[in-house]
Amino acid sequence: MALFEVSLALSYLVFTWITLTGASAAQTMKVPGAGEQAAEQSHRQDSADLLVFIALLTLTILTIWLFKHRRFRFIHETGLAMIYGLFMGVILRYGLTQTPTAPRVLYNCSLVNGSESLLVNVSGRYFEYKLQGEVENLHDPGRSEALQKVTFDPEVFFNILLPPIIFYAGYSLKRRHFFRNLGSILAYAFLGTTVSCFVTGSVFYGFVCLARAVGALKEIFHFTDCLFFGAIISATDPVTVLAIFNELRVDVDLYALLFGESVLNDAIAITLASSISAYSPSMQNTFDTAAVFICIGRFLVVLSGSFAIGAATGIMTAVVTKFTRLHEFPLLETALFFLLSWSTFLLAEACALTGIVAVLFCGITQAHYTYNNLSAESKERTKQLFELLNFLAENFIFSYMGLALFTFQKHIFNPIIIIGALLAILLGRACNIYPLSFFLNLRRRNKIGFNFQHMMMFAGLRGAVAFALAIRDTETEAQQAIFTTTLLLVFFTVWVMGGGTTPMLSWLHIRVGVDPDQDPLGHSDTFQPLQSDGISRTKNESAWLFRMWYIFDHNYLKPLLTHAGPPLTSTLPRCCEPLARCLTSPQAYENQEQLQDDDSMLVLGDADVILTTPESAANGSSSRIMTGNGQPPISDEGLEMDGGAGHDAELVGRGTRLVLHASDGEQLT
Amino acid sequence: MALFEVSLALSYLVFTWITLTGASAAQTMKVPGAGEQAAEQSHRQDSADLLVFIALLTLTILTIWLFKHRRFRFIHETGLAMIYGLFMGVILRYGLTQTPTAPRVLYNCSLVNGSESLLVNVSGRYFEYKLQGEVENLHDPGRSEALQKVTFDPEVFFNILLPPIIFYAGYSLKRRHFFRNLGSILAYAFLGTTVSCFVTGSVFYGFVCLARAVGALKEIFHFTDCLFFGAIISATDPVTVLAIFNELRVDVDLYALLFGESVLNDAIAITLASSISAYSPSMQNTFDTAAVFICIGRFLVVLSGSFAIGAATGIMTAVVTKFTRLHEFPLLETALFFLLSWSTFLLAEACALTGIVAVLFCGITQAHYTYNNLSAESKERTKQLFELLNFLAENFIFSYMGLALFTFQKHIFNPIIIIGALLAILLGRACNIYPLSFFLNLRRRNKIGFNFQHMMMFAGLRGAVAFALAIRDTETEAQQAIFTTTLLLVFFTVWVMGGGTTPMLSWLHIRVGVDPDQDPLGHSDTFQPLQSDGISRTKNESAWLFRMWYIFDHNYLKPLLTHAGPPLTSTLPRCCEPLARCLTSPQAYENQEQLQDDDSMLVLGDADVILTTPESAANGSSSRIMTGNGQPPISDEGLEMDGGAGHDAELVGRGTRLVLHASDGEQLT
Repeated sequence: MALFEVSLALSYLVFTWITLTGASAAQTMKVPGAGEQAAEQSHRQDSADLLVFIALLTLTILTIWLFKHRRFRFIHETGLAMIYGLFMGVILRYGLTQTPTAPRVLYNCSLVNGSESLLVNVSGRYFEYKLQGEVENLHDPGRSEALQKVTFDPEVFFNILLPPIIFYAGYSLKRRHFFRNLGSILAYAFLGTTVSCFVTGSVFYGFVCLARAVGALKEIFHFTDCLFFGAIISATDPVTVLAIFNELRVDVDLYALLFGESVLNDAIAITLASSISAYSPSMQNTFDTAAVFICIGRFLVVLSGSFAIGAATGIMTAVVTKFTRLHEFPLLETALFFLLSWSTFLLAEACALTGIVAVLFCGITQAHYTYNNLSAESKERTKQLFELLNFLAENFIFSYMGLALFTFQKHIFNPIIIIGALLAILLGRACNIYPLSFFLNLRRRNKIGFNFQHMMMFAGLRGAVAFALAIRDTETEAQQAIFTTTLLLVFFTVWVMGGGTTPMLSWLHIRVGVDPDQDPLGHSDTFQPLQSDGISRTKNESAWLFRMWYIFDHNYLKPLLTHAGPPLTSTLPRCCEPLARCLTSPQAYENQEQLQDDDSMLVLGDADVILTTPESAANGSSSRIMTGNGQPPISDEGLEMDGGAGHDAELVGRGTRLVLHASDGEQLT
Repeated sequence: MALFEVSLALSYLVFTWITLTGASAAQTMKVPGAGEQAAEQSHRQDSADLLVFIALLTLTILTIWLFKHRRFRFIHETGLAMIYGLFMGVILRYGLTQTPTAPRVLYNCSLVNGSESLLVNVSGRYFEYKLQGEVENLHDPGRSEALQKVTFDPEVFFNILLPPIIFYAGYSLKRRHFFRNLGSILAYAFLGTTVSCFVTGSVFYGFVCLARAVGALKEIFHFTDCLFFGAIISATDPVTVLAIFNELRVDVDLYALLFGESVLNDAIAITLASSISAYSPSMQNTFDTAAVFICIGRFLVVLSGSFAIGAATGIMTAVVTKFTRLHEFPLLETALFFLLSWSTFLLAEACALTGIVAVLFCGITQAHYTYNNLSAESKERTKQLFELLNFLAENFIFSYMGLALFTFQKHIFNPIIIIGALLAILLGRACNIYPLSFFLNLRRRNKIGFNFQHMMMFAGLRGAVAFALAIRDTETEAQQAIFTTTLLLVFFTVWVMGGGTTPMLSWLHIRVGVDPDQDPLGHSDTFQPLQSDGISRTKNESAWLFRMWYIFDHNYLKPLLTHAGPPLTSTLPRCCEPLARCLTSPQAYENQEQLQDDDSMLVLGDADVILTTPESAANGSSSRIMTGNGQPPISDEGLEMDGGAGHDAELVGRGTRLVLHASDGEQLT
């Protein structure tokens, strides 16, 4: 049967190939409508180019299925996509004979240099010509053009392929585990990425100097180039490792740490990279305090601005879906959700901020607020839609990376730089994880063990974001060398480190097979009694800040923006009663009543006493847990996206007030 | 509440507007990274342009919801989208002050004329410049450029926006009603559209000659231009009217006729238009027999080639989904389905065929075969995905049409031509519907009444396809006049005729509130006894051909390509037994057993005697109906996509053989 399946996949490829050949044969045939001929031919060529990618993706999907079906884990789907891309790149590079296109007119001139567009006056009619870029290989225009066509606009990555990936990361974030480890995640993402950026950049600069000293390097590398490399290569990829983690159900805290870090550090890396490239390049190698402060200021403005836009659009979507009865028409609701989420990205880009960061926070806000207001059908639809978009975009990027190794025409391979870069990123990652973990462990009750630290070190794969940042600008030779190095590092980390994840997990004795939804409460299907280990593991290290935010969110933001939560009439002071009544949705009152005699309660808040009844835990239902004064404690179920139905099961309004009376620092379960 | 909702919608628009203004203000501020400045600015401008459309779509969605909520029917969502587009067009045209962009270098030269690209040699480095088009307004480059940006590439319509619309039309086709009226639909689509094209073209040419005679026209209109106009304007739009029909549940046969015709005539119109524009333009006004035959030959080749590609990809997807266990992973399955369906379009375009036609037949094939093999989740996913894409693409096109009236810069308004075109399309439509209906009624038992004919005449709205064909090429003045005329005709038909659909239906006494799934079998929820009228209404006019195809499909194709249908072992001759056993899926045997004692049977086949038990009909379940010799007759449930669960309830294998024994021409129910 396996043979049959593979032959199916191959036959599809052959079929596409034959059609493509047929298509290029058709192009040499007489094409009617002589005036439109060139346009039609280029249109057909575009279609054929896109087909190459679709064929690659189809092949990848079929092979992924085969691997999943047979439970192969030594290589991940992204690694596969890259391998197929590599093959296709080889074929395109060495196997393609392209008929030269329409002759181009050659002008000799000394005026135009980097001018964006030319106006040509032909007997009174003006034609506009736009700069396409520099032409390298003048004598073989056919092939280089064909390759250039397949190597398409890096803007596409940023505007079309990355946003759904990042949005989905935010939208599908397991927020309970994320928020529990928020402090550490922020530390790794902000401090760690910055540290990693500068360490990597400096070490890399050392190797660059070494290479120049031994004469192996001709390109001019400024220190800012090296820092830029440090920034882009510090963006770790959440895709590959976490897919394996998800499949193996690795420990939830490790998962939350790695996922949170890799999602947020994309944002930081992007902002860092743009700040560094904005650091006035005329003054390089001389230290300019003002420029550094401008750079830091820019970093902060861009980050907070993008965050604000993302959160604002998310909140607006929540308001619109709450106060209109849009949920009667799931199609309209889904379309609105999709459009508003996408507009976040464009809005941020139009304001010269970072769309990726905005879209990440938009995803988190949408999941936290808007998701509660959607109809059941729209909940499914939005999740599935973005899951699909994410899947397609991801595999597309990885197969494109494979392709780029052969079709990109300005590679600069320099062994010293490549090896230096590899050492630099390992060192940079080490300087991120180990010292930070040490400092975090000083304050964390739930220590990050050495096995976790080693795993985090090992799981620092580089992927789509690093690649997209590197390909964005490949004008100077230094940038071309950086692009080549980044591409090779992505290959190395995805294949070697991605492939080694499963052996590494067992070697480090990290437990797998954990049910992420049930485990931390100690009443998963296989009953586990609460142990002191289990309790300390779930310690929320940023307890105070987190709790203040949680109360504010639960008492005011959630009731305001969603149908869930306690009614505002019970949380706002008396004087605001009319306003509160106007803003509270009827469902909120129902929820309150329903919840007051609801038996299924999940617990995260501070509780004085925890009573777990083994019977209820053993039969799979969640146990009723009482706080010291007999009130049901806070659940963080409201923070959790997965599990759909549990969403409206919000907690009792007065439960939140309890937190303030509960003694701080007690056990958190 | 309504006030609140509208204010919400408006506040979103204002918000977007402010941000856009802020964005353009930010653009005038100092942008760091001087080298990338121009690229960054153009990137931000692109984002802002796209935002305009997203804001428009969002506003449209909110208003659509409001209208649906309040059950307004005097204007349809597409009409609304156009109105918003118009407003935005006015603002962009008269309200936008654009800072002029980077200065362009002006060259005087006599060599370059229509050359696609220029090579410029600047001291040894070669830069390539690509033709952007002719510049009209040299002295106000800022505004014209900004408008040009919003007026984007017509290729986008063809490659990105139309395919999902057409695919969805094929995928969601109610095949039972479609196949029952196949003969008439094909007649209207093939003959009718061709007749309409030539009548409209000729009448239009008459008006053009008239306009030139009275001196109201300066442009050169060839007869081929007029025929081209006839072709593009013959593509009626399935969107607007059918959305209303669907909502009001209009008579299923009228629905099937109109839907089938408007979907297929898009394909015919596109093929006609490309054949006409390929008709060697050097010999116009002289009749060239060879060129006409080449044109007809081309038409047939393109149509059949596109059909073949569409069907082939559909069948391939069916085979892949049948013989792999991909349905264990709905995400992979959906992704594969999406990619293969999209690749149909590209494949056809790469082969110089018509992607739209291919994608339409691909949609029909996917719904007929592949859909049966998908997992339950993928069935939902694919339907919802394409529904969303269709919705977004449709509204985008209609709001873009509104925008184009003001932002397109080469409009040629000529009152005589516009009024002439309106009369021409009415006459062309009349020559399509009335004579054809007369001839069809000669052979149909279930006559197409005059009220249906009037409704079909009235429902000939023009929409996305006509617009996309017209905008594709606007180089000559005749083409520009045709574009303007088409745009205005779309406005007129969508607003006036689309808005008048509901009154027209009641004026023509066409029954509404029909349940499309239950009605023809006479056992809908509200019990209707079978009447002679009901029986003649469901007469399948192309009985013999249809039945032959149906038997072949049911006995061989369905079992080969899907899990449904009778096992091949029972339909193929004995000698093929090993092959049949290999190709039959295990589910087919199960289906067979399950169906032999299954009570829920739907009926379409030829049956000698029909027994309807009023009890079973009244309680809503489908009734058991027996043929003369006591065997359950053929159901056409297998041809039906909607109703999901009913799919696997395929009929008994031996039932099909019965048809051959059943007397031909008996009643069909």
